[in-house]
Amino acid sequence: MRYGYLATMRTVPGKRDDVVTLLLGGEDGLRAAGCDLYVVGTSDSDQNLVWVFEVWQSKAHHAASLELPATKAAIASAMPMLTGEFTGQELDIAGGLGIPSA
Amino acid sequence: MRYGYLATMRTVPGKRDDVVTLLLGGEDGLRAAGCDLYVVGTSDSDQNLVWVFEVWQSKAHHAASLELPATKAAIASAMPMLTGEFTGQELDIAGGLGIPSA
Repeated sequence: MRYGYLATMRTVPGKRDDVVTLLLGGEDGLRAAGCDLYVVGTSDSDQNLVWVFEVWQSKAHHAASLELPATKAAIASAMPMLTGEFTGQELDIAGGLGIPSA
Repeated sequence: MRYGYLATMRTVPGKRDDVVTLLLGGEDGLRAAGCDLYVVGTSDSDQNLVWVFEVWQSKAHHAASLELPATKAAIASAMPMLTGEFTGQELDIAGGLGIPSA
């Protein structure tokens, strides 16, 4: 079963769009690392929050991706723009439109 | 910009997997209605909760889909298996891996 991760991160005021741009920059590397979906969203209801919905081929793929140099560099770039307030929810992905068959 | 909707719904005990199966049954209709992603997940951390992450071509597509007979029938089938406790967060989808270019 595919592994899902639903995250939010709070940005310092005025930096939300920069964080979004940074998060959107890694598509090719994500795909190569076993990521099926990495969707970034925002809401006018909370202007300093960024949502990320991720689906990976397995939890191990996700964990391994965090060790890649490109991932570490992206995290280092983002950190000064984040408050340190994160949420995360792991999910077992049952399927649905947009999810490759297992 | 694409429209996102992140929902949770609480099921009555023992009915979670039936709700998941029901939610996964509508892929073809969803695609035809302008839905890009409709991902269903669960977690052992809360065994009666179902997460749905949806991305639509627009908010109007999502609203129109709720008026389709197949959607109304699915909702009617699910309702007896749900407690009535829902959450929902609208999102502006910035993009990412798995999202078609706008």
